[in-house]
Amino acid sequence: MDSLTDVRGLLVGQAQRAGGGWLTGTTVVLAPEGGAVAAVDVRGGGPSTRETDALDPRNLVQRVEAVVLTGGSAFGLDAVSGVVSWLEERGRGFRIDDDPTHVVPVVPAACLFDLGRGGDWHARPDAGLGREAAANASSTVLQGNVGAGTGAVAGGLKGGVGSASTVLQSGVTVAALAAVNAVGSVLAPDSGVLYGDLWDAGRPPYPSPEQHAEAQWRLDAAREESARRLNATVRPSLNTTLAVVATDAELTRAQAQKLAGTAHDGLARAVRPTHLLNDGDSVFTLATCQQPVDGAALNELLGAGADVLTRSVVRAVLAAESVDGPGGVFPSYRELYGSP
Amino acid sequence: MDSLTDVRGLLVGQAQRAGGGWLTGTTVVLAPEGGAVAAVDVRGGGPSTRETDALDPRNLVQRVEAVVLTGGSAFGLDAVSGVVSWLEERGRGFRIDDDPTHVVPVVPAACLFDLGRGGDWHARPDAGLGREAAANASSTVLQGNVGAGTGAVAGGLKGGVGSASTVLQSGVTVAALAAVNAVGSVLAPDSGVLYGDLWDAGRPPYPSPEQHAEAQWRLDAAREESARRLNATVRPSLNTTLAVVATDAELTRAQAQKLAGTAHDGLARAVRPTHLLNDGDSVFTLATCQQPVDGAALNELLGAGADVLTRSVVRAVLAAESVDGPGGVFPSYRELYGSP
Repeated sequence: MDSLTDVRGLLVGQAQRAGGGWLTGTTVVLAPEGGAVAAVDVRGGGPSTRETDALDPRNLVQRVEAVVLTGGSAFGLDAVSGVVSWLEERGRGFRIDDDPTHVVPVVPAACLFDLGRGGDWHARPDAGLGREAAANASSTVLQGNVGAGTGAVAGGLKGGVGSASTVLQSGVTVAALAAVNAVGSVLAPDSGVLYGDLWDAGRPPYPSPEQHAEAQWRLDAAREESARRLNATVRPSLNTTLAVVATDAELTRAQAQKLAGTAHDGLARAVRPTHLLNDGDSVFTLATCQQPVDGAALNELLGAGADVLTRSVVRAVLAAESVDGPGGVFPSYRELYGSP
Repeated sequence: MDSLTDVRGLLVGQAQRAGGGWLTGTTVVLAPEGGAVAAVDVRGGGPSTRETDALDPRNLVQRVEAVVLTGGSAFGLDAVSGVVSWLEERGRGFRIDDDPTHVVPVVPAACLFDLGRGGDWHARPDAGLGREAAANASSTVLQGNVGAGTGAVAGGLKGGVGSASTVLQSGVTVAALAAVNAVGSVLAPDSGVLYGDLWDAGRPPYPSPEQHAEAQWRLDAAREESARRLNATVRPSLNTTLAVVATDAELTRAQAQKLAGTAHDGLARAVRPTHLLNDGDSVFTLATCQQPVDGAALNELLGAGADVLTRSVVRAVLAAESVDGPGGVFPSYRELYGSP
């Protein structure tokens, strides 16, 4: 399916609100029962996170049941509460004693900045939306303006959720899901080609110069109109791209952290610039530990983790749909450049 | 001059040995007297370093007089001793008391793997070569098969030292020097275009399909011949790309560390894959603190630091010259593809 749930046992649940001042949402990645080995690498300069310290390989909790990516900036972290209670009701989490109901679900999470994008500065994901996202969990990964990508914007273009996967020579599956919301650009300003398309085999699909000039004119007009509607309250722009990279490989927690780190290279290849002070770019990893890996296979996995994240960014941008609302005008790549 | 010494006060000194079993060297970046604010971000999985803990912003030493990049793997760190004594003789280093000769030069350093590339496994930089490099310090930055780049190889192609600089809108100068020695490839395997050329304005210079097919054939033949000459002692391959990113901006030590981190994005855009277990990829930063920067200028600096590192990698590859010796056959990009 070329998506995150190609890693067997993982489910993705999303919930969102759009319209009536809203343009935001939450994405939950559910591990198989019993949890997955998890890690995080926070490389952006403006992160806002929850339970990331628990993922330090020196610390107690060995596996987590879920990871949450959410809109709503720091306020949106409230969505995690809904996921935590949903897991508690199912007896899933860190076991405290012999009572199966005594669990503490440790749910690492990070948020992205989308405040005001729907028009209402105070319309943010809450515990109810997080619970709804968890309840929606399935093996079908919706892409575009869904979940944490609902209010996402990337360099003025509409961003969103994208996902991709690959199977390595070693038989290991590696997959990614990204909520693309970047200060930087996903396309080359002089040609309009998507940076993330430069890495696949063959010549990338460069738009014609006329198509690009027209697209840039429309994008500039949209930016001006958005600034007018927002009354310039959002300056300098804040964003953040969030991702989960998952694999069925058997990784230690330290190896999972290394994978999160190298995956950021895939983000750097799809968005320029990245990791600035006003991006909180963070990558989580989940390893379901079904397949043993040796050193060579681990290196292959590290390289591929970056590559599937690059492709997830491209797929997010291509799946996104234009938004024209009280919070701004955010044209999609497909509206401006057509389908490649 | 489009090189590291465009940051006023910085000097670069290099020394190398080639022939008679040798193919290695050392590069020293000298700060102005009194030192520069320094930081490092080690992101490769196989680093070998010296004095990097001193660069943690929580630790004592505020400025350093020099940074050393060297060939010779862990053994090559001995070259730093020569730089340390050269600095001590000049009374440059961390001052201990009122006696101007009581200085401790803290010289952060990292090495790259080039053992056996010249044919003799034991021919490595030592204190003498480090001293020679320091004594060669000047504002002219030689590129290609010099200093730490002498024995460098990038994905089978000859690597080397490259440097680039830019002046930002804020008036701040940012520059980089890289010793490019990568497990990953600097070119797209399907087209031969240099990854680092994909980011500049305009269409990148794609080689013709015929030129690329011929180049790949020659590169494969060189790889086979190298494996034969080395008697397959170097498996799996070890490498490491090292860089210094410098600026005249006034940075705190923590800001300098952020700059080192984002500069790694520029490496990821020029080499794929990067930061694997068998690369010790590390970026140092030096800030001479001549120009104040605010938040927006700092963000501009972070993005540009990545970009000048991307260009430094390209310039290293284009400046490198083919080597055909007892340790292997390492063709240059220019030999295979001509001058772009």
